[in-house]
Amino acid sequence: MYSQLPLLSDITDPLLTQALQHKLDNKTKPLGSLGRIEDLALTLGEILGTENPVLDQPQMVVFAADHGLAARGVSAFPSDVTWQMVENFLAGGAAVSVLARQHGLALTVVDCGVMHNFLMDMPAGATRAGLQVRKVAWGAGDSSKGPAMTKAECAKAVAQGQALVKELPGNALLLGEMGIGNTSAASLLLSKLTGLDIAQCTGAGTGLDAQAVLRKTDVLRTVLARHARVTAPMDVLAVMGGLEIATMVGAVLQAADERRVVVVDGFIATSAVLVAHAVQPLVLQRCVFAHRSGERGHEFMLQHLGAHALLDLGMRLGEGSGAALAWPLLQSACAILREMASFESAGVSEKADNGESVA
Amino acid sequence: MYSQLPLLSDITDPLLTQALQHKLDNKTKPLGSLGRIEDLALTLGEILGTENPVLDQPQMVVFAADHGLAARGVSAFPSDVTWQMVENFLAGGAAVSVLARQHGLALTVVDCGVMHNFLMDMPAGATRAGLQVRKVAWGAGDSSKGPAMTKAECAKAVAQGQALVKELPGNALLLGEMGIGNTSAASLLLSKLTGLDIAQCTGAGTGLDAQAVLRKTDVLRTVLARHARVTAPMDVLAVMGGLEIATMVGAVLQAADERRVVVVDGFIATSAVLVAHAVQPLVLQRCVFAHRSGERGHEFMLQHLGAHALLDLGMRLGEGSGAALAWPLLQSACAILREMASFESAGVSEKADNGESVA
Repeated sequence: MYSQLPLLSDITDPLLTQALQHKLDNKTKPLGSLGRIEDLALTLGEILGTENPVLDQPQMVVFAADHGLAARGVSAFPSDVTWQMVENFLAGGAAVSVLARQHGLALTVVDCGVMHNFLMDMPAGATRAGLQVRKVAWGAGDSSKGPAMTKAECAKAVAQGQALVKELPGNALLLGEMGIGNTSAASLLLSKLTGLDIAQCTGAGTGLDAQAVLRKTDVLRTVLARHARVTAPMDVLAVMGGLEIATMVGAVLQAADERRVVVVDGFIATSAVLVAHAVQPLVLQRCVFAHRSGERGHEFMLQHLGAHALLDLGMRLGEGSGAALAWPLLQSACAILREMASFESAGVSEKADNGESVA
Repeated sequence: MYSQLPLLSDITDPLLTQALQHKLDNKTKPLGSLGRIEDLALTLGEILGTENPVLDQPQMVVFAADHGLAARGVSAFPSDVTWQMVENFLAGGAAVSVLARQHGLALTVVDCGVMHNFLMDMPAGATRAGLQVRKVAWGAGDSSKGPAMTKAECAKAVAQGQALVKELPGNALLLGEMGIGNTSAASLLLSKLTGLDIAQCTGAGTGLDAQAVLRKTDVLRTVLARHARVTAPMDVLAVMGGLEIATMVGAVLQAADERRVVVVDGFIATSAVLVAHAVQPLVLQRCVFAHRSGERGHEFMLQHLGAHALLDLGMRLGEGSGAALAWPLLQSACAILREMASFESAGVSEKADNGESVA
């Protein structure tokens, strides 16, 4: 079923890493004083395979789909908001639209399975700027009653994700998403793939109160019980994931295979990386985690992946907003590597070995 | 002596704050889901006095000076590095040069008291692009042996800071600094103005080892003992601060008086705000704290001021590098306020009051 999945190679290159570290250490600054920006520079150099990384034509892709589980009251917003927000993305009025514009990120919205026809009343073959229709189904099924996707649907969504990345220019993919109900899918994937109790994995999403979170947790527990015998990661994705998450898994694996920088947004995007990591652990070599979400469960995902996010601003919006906000830090890290002077080139005195000042 | 200091007015405007909050709450996103970016948007709207804040011609100013205390071995680098780094700023090779270029920040280096003549071999009246010579003295004195500055020198430096901000365009000031030995001055100000023991206030600076930090702490303790009877904040600044810090204090107060956004960098910049706050607490209304420095003592400064920094990347470089890295977050916060659609304008359904989904 997934024979088309790329088999990631190990991009570890000790000589390059050493050269990058040497270059950073000789920049005109105290050793290590740019903190995690230096780690980021190292990572970006390693992904792009160069001491002079240039981020080129970054692509923000917002994967959108609906969830049958939303009918069970797991979200504070109605499913209609999914398509309404897609229209908002296309009109340039959503948070990710504003941030993508600010940072010069190309923004593509992918209809992976929204319960809405975005090409309604348009002639056959018509397209809309910024929208890709790769609809595998009209929303994922209610996973409390059956699988969210059939295996074939899930495989098709993954393949769509691979295909769309192949067609995108540039060397960086920023992950965004929209789908009323998709924190539920992400919580389920977290619980199932890490063994954490669902109560630890379930949060307020778009803004449930405490009692509603308890009801959501109960619904998710019944989903887990129904699919208790499913264990293979791609099968777990099919029965309790979502069409946008499955498409994202394919996109992540393809981008990683092409050594693009994958900028991971929050809870939902990380759930896709969780699945991709379960089938291809090397995917993490190509990932930068943009921010720690305020959604309960995200920090457990980051812990499971051994990841340390760049920003920690209590955000829980999704859409790719965290990835967009972190983007200039990636540009800074590359610019530091490329443009900063060395002690030698700038004629600046170095620190004495004993840590005392020398004249 | 300080009769020219501005007397800050309270810019609190409950109606504007309410209008800003209402505007944020009606943007197409779950309530509060942009986390601290929303707090930042509120702050920027309040400082600039508008629901539609626009950051205009941001000015990164790097205040540079030398410290007599550096001769006591309190820094890992020699004093010559101060002027060498100023040349590096002017040549565009330092971290802050790279980051200012990336973000379109005008960069001005102010020689507040560097032990070097940057106009050497140039005709009288000559200037250098990006450099302002406002040298009050050739380095601050060794505060372990006498005052770092006379009261007159300190007052002159503060006045210079006010004067230079008056001449700068724009509505945002980003604070940067350079001065071998200035973490010592900042640690002294922290200890003296908050009552914390100097051991808690003293860190590795540009990279001292543990033993050298202990020696640095001993030196700083003798400074505190020598000036134990000095208590007025501006007098404390004079006896144990530095020329770049004093100039920065004047700049901060002037910028605050003009309702510019003051973007505070790390340990040294915050020490200037600490002094400004001691004489004019309302200065904090105009400050945005860019990052939490890796330098020991910075978090105590932030705690004392009740401030929460935007970034936490383990950086300890100074120069304004943290302020520059945080800058795009300020731009994002303003863009969110100005450009994001409301539920009404975008035709997006709102959350039900009971936190359950409505169709």
